[in-house]
Amino acid sequence: MTTTTAVAPAEQLDALSRRCLAEAHGFVTARAKEHFSGRSEGALAETAVPEFVAGGKCLRPLFAYVGWRCGQPDSGAAIRAAAALELLHCFAMAQDDVMDGSELRRGRTALHLRFARWHEEQGWAGSARRFGESAAILFGDLFLVWSEQLLRESGLTAEQLARGWPHYDAMRAELAVGQLGDLVNDARALPSWDTLLDVLRRKSGNYTVRRPLEFGAALAGCGPELLAGLGEFGGLVGEAFQLRDDLLGVFGDPAVTGKPAGQDLRDRKASSVVVLAAAMADRRRQTEFAELVELETVDDEAVARWRELIVATGARDRLGELIRERADKALAAIDPAVVPRHAADLLTALAARCTERDR
Amino acid sequence: MTTTTAVAPAEQLDALSRRCLAEAHGFVTARAKEHFSGRSEGALAETAVPEFVAGGKCLRPLFAYVGWRCGQPDSGAAIRAAAALELLHCFAMAQDDVMDGSELRRGRTALHLRFARWHEEQGWAGSARRFGESAAILFGDLFLVWSEQLLRESGLTAEQLARGWPHYDAMRAELAVGQLGDLVNDARALPSWDTLLDVLRRKSGNYTVRRPLEFGAALAGCGPELLAGLGEFGGLVGEAFQLRDDLLGVFGDPAVTGKPAGQDLRDRKASSVVVLAAAMADRRRQTEFAELVELETVDDEAVARWRELIVATGARDRLGELIRERADKALAAIDPAVVPRHAADLLTALAARCTERDR
Repeated sequence: MTTTTAVAPAEQLDALSRRCLAEAHGFVTARAKEHFSGRSEGALAETAVPEFVAGGKCLRPLFAYVGWRCGQPDSGAAIRAAAALELLHCFAMAQDDVMDGSELRRGRTALHLRFARWHEEQGWAGSARRFGESAAILFGDLFLVWSEQLLRESGLTAEQLARGWPHYDAMRAELAVGQLGDLVNDARALPSWDTLLDVLRRKSGNYTVRRPLEFGAALAGCGPELLAGLGEFGGLVGEAFQLRDDLLGVFGDPAVTGKPAGQDLRDRKASSVVVLAAAMADRRRQTEFAELVELETVDDEAVARWRELIVATGARDRLGELIRERADKALAAIDPAVVPRHAADLLTALAARCTERDR
Repeated sequence: MTTTTAVAPAEQLDALSRRCLAEAHGFVTARAKEHFSGRSEGALAETAVPEFVAGGKCLRPLFAYVGWRCGQPDSGAAIRAAAALELLHCFAMAQDDVMDGSELRRGRTALHLRFARWHEEQGWAGSARRFGESAAILFGDLFLVWSEQLLRESGLTAEQLARGWPHYDAMRAELAVGQLGDLVNDARALPSWDTLLDVLRRKSGNYTVRRPLEFGAALAGCGPELLAGLGEFGGLVGEAFQLRDDLLGVFGDPAVTGKPAGQDLRDRKASSVVVLAAAMADRRRQTEFAELVELETVDDEAVARWRELIVATGARDRLGELIRERADKALAAIDPAVVPRHAADLLTALAARCTERDR
């Protein structure tokens, strides 16, 4: 667990990620045991809940921890506070999968389907699907509660926590408000590219990168100049992260992403890929676009047609450029005069992990 | 807002309830404005969210506040901390209504149906029902977040809050765990009377009365002897409250309860009324019982048959006795040597409000 400069930043991130995940995993394992031991649904809950936490990439904890390192030395309390953001993410994933009807999460059966299958196995009355969805919502609620509890009990001082709460509260609220905005956008006719960029900035830009970074730096007591620089960096990397996520949602390899090929197309998500392709399509391609939008179900063949069309409009390449532009601008926002060297190295490695990833 | 002994306890409770509700309502109105102004779903969110809070009975805040008054004088900070429990209850109601498919809440259209109708009015693509359910889940999440935020920002000292968190955390977790337990019980064959009493004690007994009371008393720094007495009182009143709730779910007047007649029968809830009637039924009535359980849909006629059967088994009268027994035992648990007189008067009035109510 060394953090000396002899260890490459990417390896340091891996070690930090393992420490955060161990804290999050240990906390929910203890809570699941406390609340579910001896209950009929207990055996599944005690297995499924910790498994759901395991295998996370811990991106948000990493940004929070690196934010912390901009002002303070390594600390187990800061690791636990950062890990609280992984549980917040578990809350979002468990509930989003119900709302989006997703079947897979990280290559495993989604939580709501695991509980639906268990219901079927018991041979009980009522809808197994309904039961599974309700159970996943309730475990999402528990993750939301446990996140705040882990942060409050992290071992940080009351003064440090007081600086972090406004950022944490904003993040939690924006997460729910942003998910509602996504549902509105998906239900509505295709949004404009500008509207979409705005949602992207407010939701993912804030949630995944900027807020965690500012949260960690605030906990560490960093000053306004440093916070402003981290905010700019975070906003840009966050947007690039989401654009990459959208590309993976259309072009990602199922063996690597753990999700079906073209998942966002199957879900009819109004993602940046689709919206930009619509904006860049010439008249002939607009006609094909309209045809694809009208399809009753999006099967493998339709995914292939969608992908070809998107590539042909030039949207895929353009998104790659937009991601690189943002990543470059983000790195330029790190002022060596205010950001300590070791933190800057970790931020650079984290930006690469977010924007060049294939899962 | 006087609390001198000249004002009858029931009137004091009404005044306290209005103060708690004003704090809860003001807080969510400000949060809804902060997060939803200018959004397409904003107008509805800014109306529906505060409306959902208005009209609450504030039972849980009242127990918390009276717990506080067992050790401390009146305080605006304590009123705000107590009001946090009303927002916690809003979280539970918004999500339970989705899981139970309830159409009415306090005589109004349930939150998920309001958002579903709004979706229909927009003429958007996708399932309006699904959208409404997701929106209600997300507003439930926001209530859960806002509850904790209101408590943390109540103005109580860090030392006071530190004494309250364990009770608050237990309450939040038990709420989600208990709801899951309800779903399991409803899905399963009818539970035994003993199993049901255990669930009832752990879920409603704790959530509505005992935990709020202990939470308030802990915030006020009350000692172990006082807490133990309040715990005993709270457990008994909580059970009586739930038994009364179950009776209202079967026999309540829709004009007063704001719910359809026989709602619990229509929802096929394995409530104490049905379980006790099953246990008390003779052979002939067991046959009719089995017939009613097998019905595809529970219509007005079936509700009438169910009610007659339950009355005939003697279960309705027996539940009335069980409620009175618990209420009497609860009042005997208030030791005048440890509970201050004004708090004891309020507890007595609150117990009556919980166990003799018709809504």
